[in-house]
Amino acid sequence: MRPSGRLANQMRTISIETGFAHHAEGSALIRVGNTEVLCTASVENRVPPFLRGKGTGWVTAEYGMLPRATHTRGNREAAKGKQSGRTQEIQRLIGRSLRSVVDLPALGEMSITLDCDVLNADGGTRCASITGAWVALRLALGKLVATNVLRQLPLRGQVAAVSCGLTAAGPVLDLDYVEDSSAAADTNFVLTADRRIVEIQGTAEESPFTEDSFNELFALARQGVSVLFEAQTEAVNRAENR
Amino acid sequence: MRPSGRLANQMRTISIETGFAHHAEGSALIRVGNTEVLCTASVENRVPPFLRGKGTGWVTAEYGMLPRATHTRGNREAAKGKQSGRTQEIQRLIGRSLRSVVDLPALGEMSITLDCDVLNADGGTRCASITGAWVALRLALGKLVATNVLRQLPLRGQVAAVSCGLTAAGPVLDLDYVEDSSAAADTNFVLTADRRIVEIQGTAEESPFTEDSFNELFALARQGVSVLFEAQTEAVNRAENR
Amino acid sequence: MRPSGRLANQMRTISIETGFAHHAEGSALIRVGNTEVLCTASVENRVPPFLRGKGTGWVTAEYGMLPRATHTRGNREAAKGKQSGRTQEIQRLIGRSLRSVVDLPALGEMSITLDCDVLNADGGTRCASITGAWVALRLALGKLVATNVLRQLPLRGQVAAVSCGLTAAGPVLDLDYVEDSSAAADTNFVLTADRRIVEIQGTAEESPFTEDSFNELFALARQGVSVLFEAQTEAVNRAENR
Amino acid sequence: MRPSGRLANQMRTISIETGFAHHAEGSALIRVGNTEVLCTASVENRVPPFLRGKGTGWVTAEYGMLPRATHTRGNREAAKGKQSGRTQEIQRLIGRSLRSVVDLPALGEMSITLDCDVLNADGGTRCASITGAWVALRLALGKLVATNVLRQLPLRGQVAAVSCGLTAAGPVLDLDYVEDSSAAADTNFVLTADRRIVEIQGTAEESPFTEDSFNELFALARQGVSVLFEAQTEAVNRAENR
Amino acid sequence: MRPSGRLANQMRTISIETGFAHHAEGSALIRVGNTEVLCTASVENRVPPFLRGKGTGWVTAEYGMLPRATHTRGNREAAKGKQSGRTQEIQRLIGRSLRSVVDLPALGEMSITLDCDVLNADGGTRCASITGAWVALRLALGKLVATNVLRQLPLRGQVAAVSCGLTAAGPVLDLDYVEDSSAAADTNFVLTADRRIVEIQGTAEESPFTEDSFNELFALARQGVSVLFEAQTEAVNRAENR
Amino acid sequence: MRPSGRLANQMRTISIETGFAHHAEGSALIRVGNTEVLCTASVENRVPPFLRGKGTGWVTAEYGMLPRATHTRGNREAAKGKQSGRTQEIQRLIGRSLRSVVDLPALGEMSITLDCDVLNADGGTRCASITGAWVALRLALGKLVATNVLRQLPLRGQVAAVSCGLTAAGPVLDLDYVEDSSAAADTNFVLTADRRIVEIQGTAEESPFTEDSFNELFALARQGVSVLFEAQTEAVNRAENR
Repeated sequence: MRPSGRLANQMRTISIETGFAHHAEGSALIRVGNTEVLCTASVENRVPPFLRGKGTGWVTAEYGMLPRATHTRGNREAAKGKQSGRTQEIQRLIGRSLRSVVDLPALGEMSITLDCDVLNADGGTRCASITGAWVALRLALGKLVATNVLRQLPLRGQVAAVSCGLTAAGPVLDLDYVEDSSAAADTNFVLTADRRIVEIQGTAEESPFTEDSFNELFALARQGVSVLFEAQTEAVNRAENR
Repeated sequence: MRPSGRLANQMRTISIETGFAHHAEGSALIRVGNTEVLCTASVENRVPPFLRGKGTGWVTAEYGMLPRATHTRGNREAAKGKQSGRTQEIQRLIGRSLRSVVDLPALGEMSITLDCDVLNADGGTRCASITGAWVALRLALGKLVATNVLRQLPLRGQVAAVSCGLTAAGPVLDLDYVEDSSAAADTNFVLTADRRIVEIQGTAEESPFTEDSFNELFALARQGVSVLFEAQTEAVNRAENR
Repeated sequence: MRPSGRLANQMRTISIETGFAHHAEGSALIRVGNTEVLCTASVENRVPPFLRGKGTGWVTAEYGMLPRATHTRGNREAAKGKQSGRTQEIQRLIGRSLRSVVDLPALGEMSITLDCDVLNADGGTRCASITGAWVALRLALGKLVATNVLRQLPLRGQVAAVSCGLTAAGPVLDLDYVEDSSAAADTNFVLTADRRIVEIQGTAEESPFTEDSFNELFALARQGVSVLFEAQTEAVNRAENR
Repeated sequence: MRPSGRLANQMRTISIETGFAHHAEGSALIRVGNTEVLCTASVENRVPPFLRGKGTGWVTAEYGMLPRATHTRGNREAAKGKQSGRTQEIQRLIGRSLRSVVDLPALGEMSITLDCDVLNADGGTRCASITGAWVALRLALGKLVATNVLRQLPLRGQVAAVSCGLTAAGPVLDLDYVEDSSAAADTNFVLTADRRIVEIQGTAEESPFTEDSFNELFALARQGVSVLFEAQTEAVNRAENR
Repeated sequence: MRPSGRLANQMRTISIETGFAHHAEGSALIRVGNTEVLCTASVENRVPPFLRGKGTGWVTAEYGMLPRATHTRGNREAAKGKQSGRTQEIQRLIGRSLRSVVDLPALGEMSITLDCDVLNADGGTRCASITGAWVALRLALGKLVATNVLRQLPLRGQVAAVSCGLTAAGPVLDLDYVEDSSAAADTNFVLTADRRIVEIQGTAEESPFTEDSFNELFALARQGVSVLFEAQTEAVNRAENR
Repeated sequence: MRPSGRLANQMRTISIETGFAHHAEGSALIRVGNTEVLCTASVENRVPPFLRGKGTGWVTAEYGMLPRATHTRGNREAAKGKQSGRTQEIQRLIGRSLRSVVDLPALGEMSITLDCDVLNADGGTRCASITGAWVALRLALGKLVATNVLRQLPLRGQVAAVSCGLTAAGPVLDLDYVEDSSAAADTNFVLTADRRIVEIQGTAEESPFTEDSFNELFALARQGVSVLFEAQTEAVNRAENR
């Protein structure tokens, strides 16, 4: 029995609110249960130095957590003067995941920065960030098409992420904080709507696990992301039809 | 005529939503027109080293702005590795302003950290932070009384802030971003509900101004904060009655 | 009765020694009682990136305190690896104050950096810095005119600063360290010789104060700066006649 | 055909030299082809603050690369003043991987720091680090047993790592630099000698891949680590018998 | 012929003014020609962690240069966020030099920090710092004896420093900036009044030099420091007799 | 009697292995007894900003120590976020020493960076670094001649370094760690093969020493470097003949 009473293969309630950030070219406030992340996409007419003059674009991500997004207040990274290893690991993952579905040469010499800021944390913030960032990115690209900057969406598909783990209740989908902090192992799956793999990060600090367990987690993830792809699609449609 | 069509002495629409941050002892999401700040109050059972063993409490503040709270994306301070002078100036102001109405010895050896994070910026973020932080602080103190940690609220009154400035439309109340960036001079007033002064910060980089102009700005501020005190009171009542 | 025996409206002894820094285009070693600040003006033939090609100049300031300018030794900011919030707040104030009296377009694409380094501290260091920095700036501009780099002084007037506060002896002018550290409230006034306001920073951390008190402090400040304007004028005359 | 002429399932030549670092409690200079990493294990009689008094030990890792371990010189992280996100990500991975096979309570209140410094880089440095760090750790623990600090090895097994990827030559084992920089996708497998999973990190920045491809990579990794486990065992035996 | 017209073995004019820093336990404003350094000695009742409980004292030094002490303005180290290698090298030298003449166990568990801040630079700032710091230290120790904190001066002698170099005018004593920046080689000699060596730092970046040249420089230094020892003694006598 | 049983004028065993770093234009792994430093020379086709367009080259050095090169583990400088004063002092010394024998204009607008990383430390790491860096530099320059980038070696000679000190066993050559940490004084001599002086750094923190002692140390150093020059020559010959 899971602490939340959910079934093993049951996602938390998902909602995606677009347009929360007034100035961003695209934005999505995603809620996965009590985890809440504000994702914005910012378009700039330049690329980082290593890409200048190569006729290709860039997509990158930054991640942050408000100091009191968590049960006890965490130190503000800006005040400490550096981003933690965890923060950097997460923002690199978000950036790679989104780049995997963007046709960078088709984007041309523009950069899109995806900022994912956690307002409330209850487990799964990196997965919610990837899922929400895709919506922010999609809306920003849509605006570039609508304003004739681009002819068509330089997007190869849809990407979303979910974490699964081995808990006292067995293998379960979409870990919340209580589950996450006591799981023997957990794996983040970043998958595409056409059933391919973008990233898999499985970790078993507590106790190494078997290939069979891994396959069970993978099957759960397949179910989870299908819910997320629907929520993304619906949010984009809602935003573009108003 | 003001760009927004407002009267010279007209505040923008105010709303204060409490409880937005799930984990904080007190929180307020304040909206002043299109400026939106999430304020949280975090209580800890310890004081900074310079106060240890003195039987008195502490209240401090930190301020931040999400990278895309603004028209064009700003660099993330955590990534740059330091807080700007502007950020530090603002968070010091918020801290002093709130301490001025707290009875620190009555608080006892506890600290309250007020985090003010700007989600959307349209001028007046430091004033909105002070006004919202008071609500977050008040709710956190109320919880300490409700749980018998404190016998009564260690609070000497109510504090709120508003900016006034000399613009093309003359002296006006509650500058938005367009007004703020072209004002000849502007002044932030941090005032108490019993009509006293906590902080006054008047700045005339463009062109020094007269004492008469200053007095006009002060009179506008008096009107503005009365609206804010009502909004604060109503938000606290709403939060504590539910 | 004030600790120093001064009258409520009595400034400390003022002296301004020019030319102390051998290499600077302008320099002033200002003494206000036992507070002593070395102010230098450095001219450079370039402006910061955000002004390049705009045909206008820039004036900025940096502030520092020698580690043993104070009663007990403070940590060296260069060794700590960052400037405190207080330092940044002060240097931003000095920069804004001096820019308010400079005709930046008339200066042309040049920068002037005002360095204010406190050699001995006894209260009022930011005010002494502004007052001394004006002399250093004025001498540097005079040298640009004397060497035909500029046709005339790009200066709109004279600026000086003084702090007033509410102490046990009532409202008093020009706080020294003992008064400053026990004042219920204090206000820094940055004023021009033509009786206008550049900056007002009033702070009442201990206990909010009334508008009447504020007006009394303002009246004292008016008296104080008239003494400073004379000292500035005399120092400039002395320097340029030798 | 692979650039090196190796078969798809062929590892590079492995050698593990122990005792290279004179002072460390355990050390291994591991060579995987032209990749060369010096791994040291340092034992200290204390644990980090968050573990004090809990009767349990700690294992952590740090990773670095000499500036000219690579084709073109990289900047020294100590000179830049911070570790890159890549460095932090790798050292966190090494730490988690080794902790997964250590019985931390049995270790008692001691810390072991594993330093992995790359002397020559030709792809696969993080995997070589994990494999070599296990030997350094094993030797340090052996010394604690030999000196009666511990009764028995607090070790639950053997861990090693290898990367596999999808290249122009199809799925291949143990990528070198040339392969790594052009692979469509690559996955690092951290596995135990009893055939369980510690970490899996699959990345497909270029192009998402199928579950079948993933399974092929996994099968190759199984073959690869069996070679590494042998090399580890042999190195430990050689070291402890002399 | 030297640029200044001085003889090869002629020091610049020396003056040492004590008491310039009001708060320091000892202070000396030393002028060696146009080089001017403010040296303060600050006494604290504690030692650094590595000496706690060992019954011995500590002497350390910090060095800084005001941004406009030089011909063109240098960046402020506090603003850059770090001390340069040159600064650290100099302050380590000053600290070692002064410690060499202090009886640290006789000082007891107290620290003395010597701050040397260059107000005007014209070559030889590190040597002037050492020479002036000895006076500040001596006065601070004298005060500890006068107030019965110590029974006698924990001082083994007098230390001073001078630089000599190989210039177009041959080997010369006490280089000024013009000479220093074009010398083929220069050497700093830190010597004691009883004719012993504390530090010798000879550098020949431009062109390696012979042992004979070195011996000539050494002989000049012997002459130079005898002038400095007299100036130190006189300054201390003047300070303690008033 | 020296702890190692060596004679007063006896160097430790020297070995210099070239080519250890696969990618560097020149590399030398130097062993002086148990001290072991990996030195690499990296050639780049550009110079630092202050030399651009001046038609001259640059040689610089960086120094580091692996965390467990020492008896007890030291903190990693990259993790601490800054290089210690000691590190900066040493790398500046290495850079100056090597520049003294390079004909920078003949090198043309190229930079050579010498990285000296200590793998095992047993005293004398800065001297071993200089001696080994010369070999790495020499090989890199040789490669530039061999590939017709330069017509001839822009090298004015050979440089090597050794430390001598006053120990319980009297003045001795080539201090190891045990001797170094208890010596009353020690001096590093950086000398050329044509018997000239590049750098002398004598330090007597414990107790100032006489000119006679200094001369004895100098004589020992002369003997020591002659051994080093031979080892350098032989290593270069071995490397270039294969």
